[in-house]
Amino acid sequence: MKVYGLPMSTATRSVLTTLAEKGQEAELVLVDLTKGEQKSPAHLALHPFGVIPAFEDDDGFRLYESRAIIRYLDRKLPGPSLTPSDVHAYARMEQFISVEQCYFSPAAMKVIWERLFKKLMGGGTPDEARISEGLQGVERVFGIIEPVLGKQQYLAGDSFSLAEVTWMPYMDFFVAAGGAELVGKHPNVAAWWERVRSRPSWKKVTGA
Amino acid sequence: MKVYGLPMSTATRSVLTTLAEKGQEAELVLVDLTKGEQKSPAHLALHPFGVIPAFEDDDGFRLYESRAIIRYLDRKLPGPSLTPSDVHAYARMEQFISVEQCYFSPAAMKVIWERLFKKLMGGGTPDEARISEGLQGVERVFGIIEPVLGKQQYLAGDSFSLAEVTWMPYMDFFVAAGGAELVGKHPNVAAWWERVRSRPSWKKVTGA
Repeated sequence: MKVYGLPMSTATRSVLTTLAEKGQEAELVLVDLTKGEQKSPAHLALHPFGVIPAFEDDDGFRLYESRAIIRYLDRKLPGPSLTPSDVHAYARMEQFISVEQCYFSPAAMKVIWERLFKKLMGGGTPDEARISEGLQGVERVFGIIEPVLGKQQYLAGDSFSLAEVTWMPYMDFFVAAGGAELVGKHPNVAAWWERVRSRPSWKKVTGA
Repeated sequence: MKVYGLPMSTATRSVLTTLAEKGQEAELVLVDLTKGEQKSPAHLALHPFGVIPAFEDDDGFRLYESRAIIRYLDRKLPGPSLTPSDVHAYARMEQFISVEQCYFSPAAMKVIWERLFKKLMGGGTPDEARISEGLQGVERVFGIIEPVLGKQQYLAGDSFSLAEVTWMPYMDFFVAAGGAELVGKHPNVAAWWERVRSRPSWKKVTGA
């Protein structure tokens, strides 16, 4: 298997975490965004929208969009299932994957971009209004998952699932971008994050 | 079953189409957005982010986020499955659900908003630059699905799936917003749209 991406990319990390949870490895083929390699004809053949990651299976099957790749890998590969068999827990997993995509990561990325990546990419000084907007969005999301995580260990229920896999890369960068205080104000979120980030899969993916 | 939403809402229509495809009915409880009912305490108890639709099952199970609701309904209800059992077709379905969410509907909504809804909502005259931006985005997406739909009847393969369910509400409004010409420039997309919109489920949902 080949994953075309970057070790620091959030979406690449979701795919790599899924593989690690399944006890599997793939070759990581680096796509150098600073050279615009994601827009090269070779990469566009893998991902027509010119972003990362893209995936190629041993049988030549190609797939793009990280949230599709992780569902495919979970269904196809041996190893523990990351999708609940109970239909209500399955629905909850899907709900929280959507909450990550629609509410959590857009808000968290404002903070992450302004505080961590903007300067590195030559984008100038942080925009405090954007940061404040992002923090408010994340606080709202944490307020909503806090009672959920008071009743159960994980977003979908009592088992780690693909919902965590989609949240982890954004949680990690958000904490690195000064979000630890906001996490700490939500004890159940903080306990969940501690539980999740201490998994061997995450340590492997982040080299922690 | 109860669906809290609006008959004209794209996300509500995805849920209603899924129910119709499964041969099921739910009570549609209207949420009046013009009165801000989606931010009422009663609605926030169903959908903490204050948008539509929300869902309540006969056993009291509550769920929000339309792309989670449709997957839940498909898995739980009797009737034809809208999720391919073949793992590659399943992966393709998930890929095209993500393409809809990330690329197609954001572009299509620019055109739909400016040409159909802006005036109705008191937003003034259409912004031609936004329309042009939206049309370019949709053209790119159509260029990518055109060869796919030349090889197979539906986005995930040879069967209608949840991928279509997520695209249909945006396709319909996009065509109504003057997008028919752009659809017509892509013969496979045009044939697919004709095939899909003539389904009894879609006629039921749109009252066509």
